[in-house]
Amino acid sequence: MAKVDLGEQILGSNQRIAEKNRELFDSQGLVTINLMSGPGAGKTSLLERTVSLLRDEMKIGIIEGDLQTTQDADRVRAAGARAVQIETEGACHLDARMIARELEQFPLDEIDLLVIENVGNLVCPAAFELGEHARVMMLSVTEGDDKPSKYPTMFHKANVVLVNKTDLLPYVDYSLERVEKDVHRLKPDATVLAISCKTDEGMDRWLDWIKEQVRKNG
Amino acid sequence: MAKVDLGEQILGSNQRIAEKNRELFDSQGLVTINLMSGPGAGKTSLLERTVSLLRDEMKIGIIEGDLQTTQDADRVRAAGARAVQIETEGACHLDARMIARELEQFPLDEIDLLVIENVGNLVCPAAFELGEHARVMMLSVTEGDDKPSKYPTMFHKANVVLVNKTDLLPYVDYSLERVEKDVHRLKPDATVLAISCKTDEGMDRWLDWIKEQVRKNG
Repeated sequence: MAKVDLGEQILGSNQRIAEKNRELFDSQGLVTINLMSGPGAGKTSLLERTVSLLRDEMKIGIIEGDLQTTQDADRVRAAGARAVQIETEGACHLDARMIARELEQFPLDEIDLLVIENVGNLVCPAAFELGEHARVMMLSVTEGDDKPSKYPTMFHKANVVLVNKTDLLPYVDYSLERVEKDVHRLKPDATVLAISCKTDEGMDRWLDWIKEQVRKNG
Repeated sequence: MAKVDLGEQILGSNQRIAEKNRELFDSQGLVTINLMSGPGAGKTSLLERTVSLLRDEMKIGIIEGDLQTTQDADRVRAAGARAVQIETEGACHLDARMIARELEQFPLDEIDLLVIENVGNLVCPAAFELGEHARVMMLSVTEGDDKPSKYPTMFHKANVVLVNKTDLLPYVDYSLERVEKDVHRLKPDATVLAISCKTDEGMDRWLDWIKEQVRKNG
């Protein structure tokens, strides 16, 4: 009897559904971003600020992933996004099937950009493609500058790495240079942007990157 | 054919090994703590500081869990701990078997307290007992005060919840009251301590808690 690798089977099945999701996004001319970070790096704050700053230029849809509670969807909805919440009920990451289920009812034709905010976890979401066009990893300067080297799997496919909370840089020991170097060792062409969702430092470069993706794919 | 729940089987097997680990700890009169948090909350800094402050009173052994790199074990060893590193090679949590393997060679008779620093992850470690006597959860004030409500599984069995980086409280929006309330809703008898590993604020209460555990079980 052949040895069955359950992990491989699960990932293979996830991959097939992710590809279907991507076909659906492409058929709508829709750019989709998978936004990932550890807990509390500031993903939801980033989305609140992004939606609010781009409100006149594009319509943003958001799928929020959380173990429990719907507070994140409430927050980004208040900022002006079309948003739904997936409660994973204990699962440590989103998978392509959860997204496919939401897409059945999500008004994709009314939005220009879809952002999927993954469960706050620097390990597990890396293995599960959702059908996204780009992966955005978020760090914060209060987490310590050793995170890319200690959690490398999340950075291998990152298109953008946002280093958030630069407003707190004066109060912590953090080397942006070290992070940039470690990220580029794992993914040489990743764009690393230092930002603050509180002071808007660096937000213009982030918004430019988003606008470019939407222009390219729209 | 009965439906096989693989998850239950894995957890059942983990539980049996965890109980063996605990029997071994008990036979040595050794208190063991499972220290958990999201990435970058400050677990390793806490251990560096704790080992250094308690150096004259007790010998502390540390098992470090990380996806990759041995830098955490190097750090706590430099502070004066007996330390080994488990590289989980991608696994998002430690399990009882990984610990059992390390215990075969760890000099348990030379230490008074064993701390197991889990992989930085606010979801997955919750399900895997390691044989510990106490679970210590760490948060930091820069992560946002919604973490207990958003990641409840990690708090259901927490004996102590440390809220770290209080030195940064002046620069962030964070309600210690909300955290305390949410933690006690999940685990009414959990001890919540606000600390700073940088300024030593609150460290005396944490050290008192440790000394009490060692006295009770030693």
